[in-house]
Amino acid sequence: MRVQPCVLVIFGATGDLTQRKLYPALYNLWREELLPSHFAVVSIGRRDKTTAEVREDIIEAIRNFSRNDDHAFIDMKPFLELFTYYKLDFNDSLGYGPLKEYLAQIDRTHHTQGNRVYFLAVAPQYFALIADELHAQGMAENTGSWQRVVIEKPFGQDLASAIQLNRGVRETFREENIFRIDHYLGKEMAQNIMVIRFANTLFEPLWNNRYVDHVQISLCETVGVEGRGPYYEKAGALRDMIQNHVLQLLALIAMEPPVSLDTESVRDEKVKILRSLKVKPQDVVRGQYGPDKHGRCRGYREEDRVSPNSNTDTFVALKATIDNFRWAGVPFYLRTGKRLPQKYSEIVISFKKLPGVLYFKERDLASNLLVIRVNPDEGVYLQFNAKQPGTQSTILPVSMDFCQNCAEGFNSPEAYERLLYDVMRGDSTLFTRWDEVEYSWRFVDQIAEWWENSHEPIPIYPAGSWGPKESAELLKRDGRDWLRFTRVGGGF
Amino acid sequence: MRVQPCVLVIFGATGDLTQRKLYPALYNLWREELLPSHFAVVSIGRRDKTTAEVREDIIEAIRNFSRNDDHAFIDMKPFLELFTYYKLDFNDSLGYGPLKEYLAQIDRTHHTQGNRVYFLAVAPQYFALIADELHAQGMAENTGSWQRVVIEKPFGQDLASAIQLNRGVRETFREENIFRIDHYLGKEMAQNIMVIRFANTLFEPLWNNRYVDHVQISLCETVGVEGRGPYYEKAGALRDMIQNHVLQLLALIAMEPPVSLDTESVRDEKVKILRSLKVKPQDVVRGQYGPDKHGRCRGYREEDRVSPNSNTDTFVALKATIDNFRWAGVPFYLRTGKRLPQKYSEIVISFKKLPGVLYFKERDLASNLLVIRVNPDEGVYLQFNAKQPGTQSTILPVSMDFCQNCAEGFNSPEAYERLLYDVMRGDSTLFTRWDEVEYSWRFVDQIAEWWENSHEPIPIYPAGSWGPKESAELLKRDGRDWLRFTRVGGGF
Repeated sequence: MRVQPCVLVIFGATGDLTQRKLYPALYNLWREELLPSHFAVVSIGRRDKTTAEVREDIIEAIRNFSRNDDHAFIDMKPFLELFTYYKLDFNDSLGYGPLKEYLAQIDRTHHTQGNRVYFLAVAPQYFALIADELHAQGMAENTGSWQRVVIEKPFGQDLASAIQLNRGVRETFREENIFRIDHYLGKEMAQNIMVIRFANTLFEPLWNNRYVDHVQISLCETVGVEGRGPYYEKAGALRDMIQNHVLQLLALIAMEPPVSLDTESVRDEKVKILRSLKVKPQDVVRGQYGPDKHGRCRGYREEDRVSPNSNTDTFVALKATIDNFRWAGVPFYLRTGKRLPQKYSEIVISFKKLPGVLYFKERDLASNLLVIRVNPDEGVYLQFNAKQPGTQSTILPVSMDFCQNCAEGFNSPEAYERLLYDVMRGDSTLFTRWDEVEYSWRFVDQIAEWWENSHEPIPIYPAGSWGPKESAELLKRDGRDWLRFTRVGGGF
Repeated sequence: MRVQPCVLVIFGATGDLTQRKLYPALYNLWREELLPSHFAVVSIGRRDKTTAEVREDIIEAIRNFSRNDDHAFIDMKPFLELFTYYKLDFNDSLGYGPLKEYLAQIDRTHHTQGNRVYFLAVAPQYFALIADELHAQGMAENTGSWQRVVIEKPFGQDLASAIQLNRGVRETFREENIFRIDHYLGKEMAQNIMVIRFANTLFEPLWNNRYVDHVQISLCETVGVEGRGPYYEKAGALRDMIQNHVLQLLALIAMEPPVSLDTESVRDEKVKILRSLKVKPQDVVRGQYGPDKHGRCRGYREEDRVSPNSNTDTFVALKATIDNFRWAGVPFYLRTGKRLPQKYSEIVISFKKLPGVLYFKERDLASNLLVIRVNPDEGVYLQFNAKQPGTQSTILPVSMDFCQNCAEGFNSPEAYERLLYDVMRGDSTLFTRWDEVEYSWRFVDQIAEWWENSHEPIPIYPAGSWGPKESAELLKRDGRDWLRFTRVGGGF
């Protein structure tokens, strides 16, 4: 599939996501000549702005957020000319007719053939509204051209609200034209999981409960809630991270080989994992960060626009199982949290030990480990046992490391580059299908319900620690520990 | 097992092996405090020498050949005082009685308890002679102390002569006191093969004909025959390298898990491999180096004390199979030669490709490889497939590397350190038992016989090339190529 001529229409172009992610991603796609040959971007916002001002914003965004910051040495004119600003209040029904005219005019000047990507970089309550208005103008479906809509998390707060939200968009756009972003799927190493599993004889035969002891998935952040108090109060770590990113990574790690690499075959397998996923109340740990020990960092309840009695979770750890033939008996430990000592995302596959004969007879040798490092390092780390050099026969774990983005001057593409690229060529493999969203919410909703019915206060952990002590205990009682291999220095 | 008090008696102490290998190894064992607490070395030679002169030789040997060259900063007196020189003509029966007295005296002064290691660093024709004389003096077997004899290759020229040689030593020494050195077994990575295989869940389940496509073992040298013409004329690469080093590495790679790690259990399994080893005449390639293209290097037939019509092989490549349940159908390609472009020893395990679905459907992805690098780099190299970073979905082989001896300033122990250490503690796991020698000769003898009965001239390859073209063809006709991963620059 190749990118096709189109107009990218960004609703919410003056917002954070556009500045931090979309403009830099478009710049890097342009640099690598991956944009369609006939292409334009219409940045839509409520504010009074000129196209010239928006182009200034774009330069600024690239300077601040792009992985490549070489715009000063490049003739930016052809890139900037792709962009125009269009002022529109999303609530103003009367504004959509002129927008339609405006886009039609761009089709004529840019030969973009009536194809549209509507990127809704707006709060979820506007999804259905904008979709409705586009539909009312006949802009949501056309013959002879395509209209795609891109939406971002949070996709609801629970299954019920997600269904509602989905219905609002589905009434006007067909499922294959809805691109639900989970930006973790755009990360290099998330894309690499399937390749590592299905393109390697070294790993494929071992990928089951006969050889795997357990799996750990950790998505750790050092930041607190920042300015996002009102959103986070309703979400918490469970909805903000587990429901989407963590479960998506889990599905990629655990799914059966799909019939083919096409979008629907892969999604079919991911859904089967989400449907087989089980968790028990006693295997879920939540926590909320308090102030750190040195008083340098306030607790969650002291954050702006957060309730001083808030019970919102900023940390979740849980043990899940997958009730299928491949994974029965293998625990999947999942963990995410804010204000932890280190920012990193990592998947650890810990292999079973060999039978207690030969080298395993007298010594407790370390487990073999395959670590997929998703962020900030991108790579694969392997730990196995070897004889220590020397005249004594000592066996020690040794490691091999393959880092994709460690080379001097090398930056992997940002997730949004790949995701925008895929939207423009109509490949939705790295986006989530509705039933994936649905079963993720089912899994998460049961946990939220346990918490609602619980009278236990939420455990508070000091900012800068690895969460409440219950998190370590969750693994300790199975005779295991949280593992961590990312080498970068702490960021807290 | 710990090292025990003993006297090390070196026959042939003025020879090359003692200077290059034994003295440096003893020095490094001493530095690491691995020598017995009560210990002495008697260097025996035919020449007139004083102990003081021998101690000068030792310093010189350390300077030239030791991996650690820090003797100038160390008080060498305690080390040098371990050594005395004793003049003896091996042919002189009358000399062994006084030697016995001399060693008994050292027992009294050094508290070495009558234990002896007789290291026969002499030509094989002296093995039986020296053994007989020791026996005649009652020095080969004692109650209350042990007498061990160490012998070096070449251990015969064929099975018949090996049996003869063995009988000469076995008449006086018991099998468990005979330490037949194959110095390749003392190399770090040869010792590591069993650990890599039997201490790792990542590799053990894949180690069979279901997952392994083929195995390559290459022992390549850049040197020519040097001054060893008369020996090499009778040996050739087949007897000098294949019969011992190559087959020993093969046995370690291919053997079944032993019942335990004890010496006899391991040897039992190695013998089973040697007995199951099969080769066909059309699967053996021999070659002899001629002059190089630039005339800088003479051909084998121009070397000193080499027949100008010599048919001696300086290169052998062959395809063997192992007729057992684990390895049926998996070719083992073995290769060794002199005057090749690079000096290195390497074992490559090439894994089968996955079924032709998913990533293997449209693309011919590279095979997964596990490479055990024996010499000069010591380590493990792994090649597998991953997605290339970037917005396109390109799959490329990537590699992970674990190098034991690459760290700045680190030197692995030399093979002889480990081997001497093991003799002094009575561990013969890294030495070859008689039946291993026997079955290796059976394998090699059939090839030698084919060659004797052949009327084909031996193919000549230019010095500095990878052997005769038949070597590449041997793999080409199976759709394979010789692989090479050692990174060090060429040494030719």
